[in-house]
Amino acid sequence: MPELHIADAFAQALGVVLESEHPVTVALDLEERHMNFHGVTHGGVLFSLADAAFALASNRAGERAVAIDAHLVLTAGTRVGDRLTAVAEEVTRGRTLGTYRVGITRSDGRVCGLFTGTVFIG
Amino acid sequence: MPELHIADAFAQALGVVLESEHPVTVALDLEERHMNFHGVTHGGVLFSLADAAFALASNRAGERAVAIDAHLVLTAGTRVGDRLTAVAEEVTRGRTLGTYRVGITRSDGRVCGLFTGTVFIG
Amino acid sequence: MPELHIADAFAQALGVVLESEHPVTVALDLEERHMNFHGVTHGGVLFSLADAAFALASNRAGERAVAIDAHLVLTAGTRVGDRLTAVAEEVTRGRTLGTYRVGITRSDGRVCGLFTGTVFIG
Amino acid sequence: MPELHIADAFAQALGVVLESEHPVTVALDLEERHMNFHGVTHGGVLFSLADAAFALASNRAGERAVAIDAHLVLTAGTRVGDRLTAVAEEVTRGRTLGTYRVGITRSDGRVCGLFTGTVFIG
Repeated sequence: MPELHIADAFAQALGVVLESEHPVTVALDLEERHMNFHGVTHGGVLFSLADAAFALASNRAGERAVAIDAHLVLTAGTRVGDRLTAVAEEVTRGRTLGTYRVGITRSDGRVCGLFTGTVFIG
Repeated sequence: MPELHIADAFAQALGVVLESEHPVTVALDLEERHMNFHGVTHGGVLFSLADAAFALASNRAGERAVAIDAHLVLTAGTRVGDRLTAVAEEVTRGRTLGTYRVGITRSDGRVCGLFTGTVFIG
Repeated sequence: MPELHIADAFAQALGVVLESEHPVTVALDLEERHMNFHGVTHGGVLFSLADAAFALASNRAGERAVAIDAHLVLTAGTRVGDRLTAVAEEVTRGRTLGTYRVGITRSDGRVCGLFTGTVFIG
Repeated sequence: MPELHIADAFAQALGVVLESEHPVTVALDLEERHMNFHGVTHGGVLFSLADAAFALASNRAGERAVAIDAHLVLTAGTRVGDRLTAVAEEVTRGRTLGTYRVGITRSDGRVCGLFTGTVFIG
């Protein structure tokens, strides 16, 4: 099986890896550097993980998709050592707008983030 | 004037600096590493910048505030070399919930992100 | 089969009917009074329909659930004569917070609204 | 002073009145019919009030603006007899997208709702 690549330098530097393309599935092993001053995962890390899945799912050859809106609910805490998995689902896609949902789960199966994002296609 | 510090290792590693505490104002000089595969700033970078301001504004001595929800609208593109400034405003704060707004602007004054976040205080 | 009832006077006055309790499913036949000045359904109507499903799914005997946050993406237009169906799903529920997703579909199966809501349980 | 009119039949039926056009300001006197089964204002009522202000602020002569996304935080309860006022602010508007914020306050000045909405202009 060929290795999958995250084209995005920012997501890559964060430690995000691509696990599957159908459906788009990305993962992240939480390290000390991902924590905030409470010792739980920084909201920006969870957002960036979901956003990486969203970007991969919404961008297609020949069509540039730019995010215009995103909503994230943080439903459970996560800590160093947890492995997070984010799966993106295309809900609707027209000529100019597309909307995607991303669910983030911990290794124990608990949902820790719910993301909804819309792209402008142009 | 004493130098202000971002307590958050993740935000610090991203390059976020604290400019003022009243109101909470943070800034970020955009570099190549903050860009996505379209050459514009990664949504996760804008979110993390806003989230850093939100966290600083919502956390107070003796009260732990944990984010439960965040919404971000991306209203203008930004590129390498732009300096982004995020200012947080407390809209409401009760015993258990607090809601904050963060506006992100570019050096030219254009609003490029609008963030609304709610914390659970416990 | 016993008739199901919407306890909520506002939703009832709007024309919302309860179709099923597991999962919570509500429906609305769109009339002239639900349209805005463009001749398409008012955002408030779609929100209220989703909110009715959200309220029914999140309120349980002995536990009062109050909405604190809601996000709605409008993904397709709807018109007089369309029948809208909203189905609520509980994503997570702890002691103090619960998060729900509601999808709204038209009679032709197209998704026209995506709603995410969080309640405070107290 | 000429009386101001809400063009929107749905908002009008709800009891929403237009107080000012610059900035767009709408108001609603809360009645029994606006309450949910907890005896507090239905989320759909608050959303519809904010949405009425958003629609009036985002629609201009010759340009049709259609809502694509909305986020509402409910920051304080409201009851029968309260008068709610919603004021809309245009944050950004380009050729194809515009983003607006609406704050809802009670007669006592407390913020009870924070709304952010984006329109597609076409």
